[in-house]
Amino acid sequence: MERHFEQELGELKERLLWMGSLAERAVHQAVQALLESDARSARRVLDEEPAINAMQMEIDDRVMRLLALQQLMAKDLRFALAVTRINADLERIGDLAVNISEAAIRLLDYPRIRPYVDLGRMAALAEEMVREGLDAVVRGDVEKARAILTRDDEVDRLRDQIFQELLSDMRQNSSTISPAFEFILVSKNLERVADHATNIAEDVIYMVEGSDVRHHAFDHS
Amino acid sequence: MERHFEQELGELKERLLWMGSLAERAVHQAVQALLESDARSARRVLDEEPAINAMQMEIDDRVMRLLALQQLMAKDLRFALAVTRINADLERIGDLAVNISEAAIRLLDYPRIRPYVDLGRMAALAEEMVREGLDAVVRGDVEKARAILTRDDEVDRLRDQIFQELLSDMRQNSSTISPAFEFILVSKNLERVADHATNIAEDVIYMVEGSDVRHHAFDHS
Repeated sequence: MERHFEQELGELKERLLWMGSLAERAVHQAVQALLESDARSARRVLDEEPAINAMQMEIDDRVMRLLALQQLMAKDLRFALAVTRINADLERIGDLAVNISEAAIRLLDYPRIRPYVDLGRMAALAEEMVREGLDAVVRGDVEKARAILTRDDEVDRLRDQIFQELLSDMRQNSSTISPAFEFILVSKNLERVADHATNIAEDVIYMVEGSDVRHHAFDHS
Repeated sequence: MERHFEQELGELKERLLWMGSLAERAVHQAVQALLESDARSARRVLDEEPAINAMQMEIDDRVMRLLALQQLMAKDLRFALAVTRINADLERIGDLAVNISEAAIRLLDYPRIRPYVDLGRMAALAEEMVREGLDAVVRGDVEKARAILTRDDEVDRLRDQIFQELLSDMRQNSSTISPAFEFILVSKNLERVADHATNIAEDVIYMVEGSDVRHHAFDHS
């Protein structure tokens, strides 16, 4: 029985990592498609989304099986609850990649308005946060999780910088308003990817320490 | 034992409803503050957010207690997993209300740009979706949940309409660019409130029917 449990747990972690790599790759492809005006890559992200959705269902089924298997320790219960929330976060990251791909396709109708250096940096940072977050989940690494929380501010700074540049372009040349608007939406989507990574990191801390640091408000463990 | 379980379950549902009403009220107050340029109301939303965060932790603790209590039926396990996800959705609705309140405060620096009729309608619709979603949770009402899914399209239509109006204002008068940008962000926040309501509705269907309709892709119950 114990063996069975450990095996189920190991498989669950493996599938969650796989789900995470699908979601992260979707974001990466979507942003590359945007930066390189590559419609084919953008469409590939749309085509691959159903696989992420199917994976979410499979993982939630595994969590159900784990919970049904036997009376779990508090630590394992927390892990199971965290996984179902993290799973939902990853699925929504996949949705955000779809939004970015759709914007990439719409942006093909406009001349390029700027070299999008900061957007690429913001995307790289958000992707890294997701990857590190999942690594922290499977290792139960609280230090790594805490490091992710501090990086969210960096993402917000990049976002504000991008917004300022876009608004300044819009003011100077009204023909940039429509494409700049698309970039505002893309930046918001990347910000949300980073927010989901932050949620994942907070769930790792909750999962490992039992205390709920999600709101830094009080410790009721 | 059975009695104890039913009682815990009843209390959990009650607390979730209470959490939902806090989140919904926060959105309502934030949007009213925006429409009426009322800084004091906007600040009240910021002050009340910690209560929503604390409630999320309390509810997750209750889910843990329920799972630890006894070997649950598949139906009850699904309910417990759905509650922890719905709880996270509600907490994020509270965050979105904070974003809207902050935008309301920033907008006080600008002259009003338009009568914001559609924004009020979009907010009312999103709030109603949250309220109906929670009602569907506690009643296990799949029909009601499905009705919510169809309303999300209405929200998206209103959002597109608002975007078109804002972009047209920006093009005609560049002095509206900064406040219009704030309204774009507010509309995105309201769209996300509706998205969370949709997540809640999908979780109700999953919880009641066992099949995972979250992606309408296949039924693997």
